[in-house]
Amino acid sequence: MAGQAAVRAQAEAVRRLKEEKADPDEISKEMEKLLEMETQLGDEGKSKFVLKTPKGTRDYNPKQMAIRERVFNAIITCFKRHGAEVIDTPVFELKETLTGKYGEDSKLIYDLKDQGGELLSLRYDLTVPFARYLAMNKIINIKRYHIAKVYRRDNPAMTRGRYREFYQCDFDIAGQFDPMIPDAECLKIVHEILSELQLGDFLIKVNDRRILDGMFAVCGVPESKFRTICSSVDKLDKMPWEDVRSEMVGEKGLSPEAADCIGEYVQLHGGLDLIEQLLQDPKLSQNKLAKEGLGDMKLLFEYLTLFGITGKISFDLSLARGLDYYTGVIFEAVLVQQENNQVEEPVSVGSVAGGGRYDGLVGMFDPKGRKVPCVGVSIGIERIFSIMEQKLEASAEKIRTTETQVLVASAQKKLLEERLKLISELWDAGIKAEMLYKKNPKLLNQLQYCEDTGIPLVAIVGEQELKDGVVKLRVVATREEVDVRRESLAEEIKTRTSQT
Amino acid sequence: MAGQAAVRAQAEAVRRLKEEKADPDEISKEMEKLLEMETQLGDEGKSKFVLKTPKGTRDYNPKQMAIRERVFNAIITCFKRHGAEVIDTPVFELKETLTGKYGEDSKLIYDLKDQGGELLSLRYDLTVPFARYLAMNKIINIKRYHIAKVYRRDNPAMTRGRYREFYQCDFDIAGQFDPMIPDAECLKIVHEILSELQLGDFLIKVNDRRILDGMFAVCGVPESKFRTICSSVDKLDKMPWEDVRSEMVGEKGLSPEAADCIGEYVQLHGGLDLIEQLLQDPKLSQNKLAKEGLGDMKLLFEYLTLFGITGKISFDLSLARGLDYYTGVIFEAVLVQQENNQVEEPVSVGSVAGGGRYDGLVGMFDPKGRKVPCVGVSIGIERIFSIMEQKLEASAEKIRTTETQVLVASAQKKLLEERLKLISELWDAGIKAEMLYKKNPKLLNQLQYCEDTGIPLVAIVGEQELKDGVVKLRVVATREEVDVRRESLAEEIKTRTSQT
Repeated sequence: MAGQAAVRAQAEAVRRLKEEKADPDEISKEMEKLLEMETQLGDEGKSKFVLKTPKGTRDYNPKQMAIRERVFNAIITCFKRHGAEVIDTPVFELKETLTGKYGEDSKLIYDLKDQGGELLSLRYDLTVPFARYLAMNKIINIKRYHIAKVYRRDNPAMTRGRYREFYQCDFDIAGQFDPMIPDAECLKIVHEILSELQLGDFLIKVNDRRILDGMFAVCGVPESKFRTICSSVDKLDKMPWEDVRSEMVGEKGLSPEAADCIGEYVQLHGGLDLIEQLLQDPKLSQNKLAKEGLGDMKLLFEYLTLFGITGKISFDLSLARGLDYYTGVIFEAVLVQQENNQVEEPVSVGSVAGGGRYDGLVGMFDPKGRKVPCVGVSIGIERIFSIMEQKLEASAEKIRTTETQVLVASAQKKLLEERLKLISELWDAGIKAEMLYKKNPKLLNQLQYCEDTGIPLVAIVGEQELKDGVVKLRVVATREEVDVRRESLAEEIKTRTSQT
Repeated sequence: MAGQAAVRAQAEAVRRLKEEKADPDEISKEMEKLLEMETQLGDEGKSKFVLKTPKGTRDYNPKQMAIRERVFNAIITCFKRHGAEVIDTPVFELKETLTGKYGEDSKLIYDLKDQGGELLSLRYDLTVPFARYLAMNKIINIKRYHIAKVYRRDNPAMTRGRYREFYQCDFDIAGQFDPMIPDAECLKIVHEILSELQLGDFLIKVNDRRILDGMFAVCGVPESKFRTICSSVDKLDKMPWEDVRSEMVGEKGLSPEAADCIGEYVQLHGGLDLIEQLLQDPKLSQNKLAKEGLGDMKLLFEYLTLFGITGKISFDLSLARGLDYYTGVIFEAVLVQQENNQVEEPVSVGSVAGGGRYDGLVGMFDPKGRKVPCVGVSIGIERIFSIMEQKLEASAEKIRTTETQVLVASAQKKLLEERLKLISELWDAGIKAEMLYKKNPKLLNQLQYCEDTGIPLVAIVGEQELKDGVVKLRVVATREEVDVRRESLAEEIKTRTSQT
């Protein structure tokens, strides 16, 4: 347990980092440490109740939710356009359901406390629960999407959109079909979503686990090292080749010749021309797996040509993907920083979508090992959300957090009952309406509320209007006022707000 | 650890219960026991991997999701009609955030395993996280809704819609306002939602914690026993008065006279007349709290009269609500079984919405104890969902699980590429389109797929049509076929599907 002095020292350290304008991630790491020390202070610190969300998580305020809903809507609209059904699964699974599916990353799984009964863990992704669902319900054919939160005890880097609780938006096609047709559709979906969201230029890298494995084989990597060498290749987007090479040779005991052979291949990226070239490659073309993968890659590019999207697709031999369960095509979409974009702190760009084919996962759950081939894509919503938030922050657009069409107001006192009667009529007519929860609000305050929240219309009740059977309708933007007969008020509001 | 023999005996017991057509809840309880025993078998049972979701949880299949979305849409539309913003909070909170908020029910909270770092618990409701959010962000005024899953290690009764993981749909108004205006709006919302969902007749019971406390005081209940006696009163919807009385007197040490005095009051229910009567009650009218509560209750009924909903509202002195944090108005909506409804196994009716005023909860999180008055309502979505599911199951309505407008098909072989080209054009034009993932599907299979999934149109490409620059559009229901020029196909599909 940390003493009060240690806590004070840590607080001082955090303050210093802030003054020095250090890396925000480092500051937040030290801040976390401070908060944990304070939490552990026990009775001594009890009066200092820490008012925060758990490490690596956040609340969404109404403005963030409005942005989030926009992004979700674009994604869901696309998934539905492709005929997907939707399912949901529990946030936790039996611990054993997740065991042995994620390789090294298993240490990042959140376990629940053993409170008697089953041992449970929070889901780490949506793919393993999907496979469990298919096996459990003996489904051999489905196209579904699933949008839900997943949990990883990773080191959070919240400024870059890396959280411990985050959303995944998954679209998967399960079933035995003719080759590469569903795979091509997954790439079309990524293309549609990233185009729709207008995040800037993007590139979808594509590779195939069979090509990678074939490449490892012809370079002389022992089969037992395929997966671990694959993990090293996966680091190429963050580390230079030299560092990856020394990891392969130094840590993982690969021969320098094999490493150099891999080094040659992983530089390659291109399109149909590169596929043709590798199909003629004296070494690769001799390997059955690689040949199969290259043949399918060719087919995939033909389909993508029909979809008209090859301009943003790159067959890239350095793409490896971390997860163990992929068996065929793999892909990853990255945002491409424009070179003429002169910003002081460049927005960190990175993977915004990824996926691939996993033909063996469902079989791991089936008592008889029956396989259901699957291919799917996961949209990296948190990173997209971070970018959208920054863009909207920078733009002049004012984001409304409600959809209220009209404020029911009064100009004189003692009209609360009349306001309640009118707003009730409007609600019952399906109008989105608000009023201030005050007996006698000032007209100015009521108009100000509309300005602040973006409500476009005010329905003003006054004694004269009540006598005349009308309501004064005021357009907030223009200050125009018209008397509307009470029985046609709802219609009038609908007409006026359907144009905006 | 249970041995193989014990497991076999338990399996036999389950089989017997099923044969006897025992209570489904009991069967599922014994089934759970069996599954847990099997899980604990260790190595011996390892080959028997248990393929299931955790106890008290379930997957939602596409049909269930379609029903769920309908219910959610009705609820969200209502919340938005009342001008609510939306927020989201993490699925887990610091353990200490939840500590001391739920009284006896705290034992039902799911804790996460201590894996180093903070101690975390899954949220038990959405109200405490909301209060934490307000205090943390120093918000003193907000109207928001929040729809999310909450977690309780309760004994599940899934046939009655009681789960360990379930959705809550909460609408709350926070802020210092004139009395009973937000409270009345919460009741209006419950009325709107239950009317909209057409679940059958319903009744909203209303009471006030101040009236209850005043009643306890005038009946001679010692103040230290207010909350525990309140818990006993809360059981009146499940137990007869005699049993509640003996719990009060026997277990909780209340004097028989005090219990009988309470017994007189809790029989009472009515409307404005009862409020007036109690305001004249020689004992109650002498109690400050009760008088305050009755005065506000009168005001509430005046507002509800303006809303035109008093027909479904009952001021009911037996309504107590379980949770500790309520401070004023409380309410609960129940479905009312029609008496002429002659069903063998009556659908279990019960509470489908509840809520109340909690003016002290935010202050528990504020370092200076600053209060933010709140009132809110929670819709019991799981029970509503169970009822809707049964109703739809019983009706002839076929529920579509996708929104696909058209299937892109071909009558001849070797037209895969043409189908891919056409479907890509349709997707890009915003049409929801599917195709079979086969090189050469039979026309009959393609038409059958439309029948099965409810797709209304088929766009058929054939060699003659390609030459003529047209596509054959077939209406599945009528088998009518027309040739449509390719460039106007998307428009034609939009027109034809907007009418359905």
